[in-house]
Amino acid sequence: MKRPTIADIAKAAGVSKGAVSYALNNRPGVSAATRSRITGIAAELGWAPSTAARALSDGRAGALGLVIDRPAETLDAEPFLIRLIAGIQDELGAGPASLVLQVSPNHDTEVEIYRRWHAERRVDGVLLIDLRDDDARLDAVAALGLPAVVLGGPLGRPGLPCAWIDDEAAIDEVLEYLAALGHRRIVRVAGPREFMHTRVRSEAFEKAARRLGFESAEVVHTDYSDEAGASAARRVLVSRRPPSALVFDNDVMAVAALGVAHELGISVPGDVSLVAWDDSVLCRLVRPALSAIRRPIAEFGALAASLLRRTVEGETVGDERTSPPMLVTRGSSGPAA
Amino acid sequence: MKRPTIADIAKAAGVSKGAVSYALNNRPGVSAATRSRITGIAAELGWAPSTAARALSDGRAGALGLVIDRPAETLDAEPFLIRLIAGIQDELGAGPASLVLQVSPNHDTEVEIYRRWHAERRVDGVLLIDLRDDDARLDAVAALGLPAVVLGGPLGRPGLPCAWIDDEAAIDEVLEYLAALGHRRIVRVAGPREFMHTRVRSEAFEKAARRLGFESAEVVHTDYSDEAGASAARRVLVSRRPPSALVFDNDVMAVAALGVAHELGISVPGDVSLVAWDDSVLCRLVRPALSAIRRPIAEFGALAASLLRRTVEGETVGDERTSPPMLVTRGSSGPAA
Repeated sequence: MKRPTIADIAKAAGVSKGAVSYALNNRPGVSAATRSRITGIAAELGWAPSTAARALSDGRAGALGLVIDRPAETLDAEPFLIRLIAGIQDELGAGPASLVLQVSPNHDTEVEIYRRWHAERRVDGVLLIDLRDDDARLDAVAALGLPAVVLGGPLGRPGLPCAWIDDEAAIDEVLEYLAALGHRRIVRVAGPREFMHTRVRSEAFEKAARRLGFESAEVVHTDYSDEAGASAARRVLVSRRPPSALVFDNDVMAVAALGVAHELGISVPGDVSLVAWDDSVLCRLVRPALSAIRRPIAEFGALAASLLRRTVEGETVGDERTSPPMLVTRGSSGPAA
Repeated sequence: MKRPTIADIAKAAGVSKGAVSYALNNRPGVSAATRSRITGIAAELGWAPSTAARALSDGRAGALGLVIDRPAETLDAEPFLIRLIAGIQDELGAGPASLVLQVSPNHDTEVEIYRRWHAERRVDGVLLIDLRDDDARLDAVAALGLPAVVLGGPLGRPGLPCAWIDDEAAIDEVLEYLAALGHRRIVRVAGPREFMHTRVRSEAFEKAARRLGFESAEVVHTDYSDEAGASAARRVLVSRRPPSALVFDNDVMAVAALGVAHELGISVPGDVSLVAWDDSVLCRLVRPALSAIRRPIAEFGALAASLLRRTVEGETVGDERTSPPMLVTRGSSGPAA
């Protein structure tokens, strides 16, 4: 069974190729009855307009692009990306738009990929993740005239809509919870300093700590790895005036810290409370199970895909926020000692 | 900066559009010097042949397709897919081939996606994962004439090459290790019965158990979830003659079983040894850390993409195997009580 052509449909319907073309392109030239017979036969034969032909006629690729620019070892540990992709796909549905995916070793290559995708008309627009301060990609896509949506921000930048999660609200909720439990000394074990979302969360952390009157609120930067999380936790837990609560930027570092506390004979949550970020199976399965921020990741992906689809269709859209994240409390957090 | 056209290049080079077309398509009609000047200017302007135009002229989409047909909650927990995708991308490199990805709710929709991709010339071929017995997709892609490579098997089916990992060797290694430690009663907590890889591993498990003279070797089927893993572990551990070792089909179920053993006051590895499948951060981070089978997942993806690329290019390729999986031993396994 080969890919059906206009000629196959014409043969099966006993009409001319011209008649098939009129019918399938919704142009006058055939009767309503013939049109309906032809479209019926086309559907039966599994006919679909070639992406290539459609792209040449209406200029649309029918695809969105996503470049992932993270080290493989980080990809490995985090359910974030696969959830995000599932959400994007949810929005695209079984519709005509596909997701084109590429892993890039660095930012320069990433911009090269956008340039190539755009030049080849491979995608109609791209989703930008893991924004950095002074991110070169923003100007690059603007210069290319390639429609783009940022997952993050909000940037309030015209022509570059953001889908965003209110991380500040999440940080507020965690710190209010810890303050209510009597904690006064806390440490945030954060991701890399260069990510914009790391900065947003750190600023929210410092602001909330001041507002709630914490005695100390330190931020330690890591590369998200379990080793870096363990090392940061070990350093602050053996310090002269250790914190009574640690808040992490992912799940893996929080689990590693749990192991460190165990090694040091420090009770969780008796001596120190731990809160992870982006709740996961991992958070649920360890003992004690980890309190964690649960963010609507699939919704985040779906919202971004929807903003991009609408942008590609010519609609002017602004920044839009997902439903709020929430704190899920489990055995790893409790009253300050 | 708009997408550059043949006309832009002609203007910049001060030649006719015909000359540009001759030069870029490597056809006679321009001097070597002019050709080199034109291709230089085209490169400078970031010109690339449109995917659409190329697909119409040479019939190639320049993309491979992957449909993921797994429940979202399973996607979430497993690093398998993201590692596999990283491996596929490694093989595709920054080259002209892209990966088109779609999540499908079921097998029927999956076949529909292949039909549409093929009719639209969206992809040149597809990678098939999670094979089942009597998998309808095999005949469907053959009927469509859509090049495909199976991740699994090996099937030894002409025209449908398989990239495969020797799961039988992995099972042999685990059982020989457990036998050497004096274990005689073991249970395999397996994935769903309908997957071909589940059957391959279960058959290898029963064969190795017979060969090594195990007293009992039961297989329990689950849906891969931590709840199902916990439930299976609880049932066999409280039975009248419990096994001294459990071998799991993923990491999440093994971690859940660790929690169950803890609840029941059963020592790991003192009373029972646990071995997980597909080593992960999760296996490393829990206490005791889990012994696990480590398979070359990224290599698996790269091998499959390479077989598919070669098939699309017209080469006849057969089934090919990755480098062997290996057992990584950690604290969760030890001598039988």
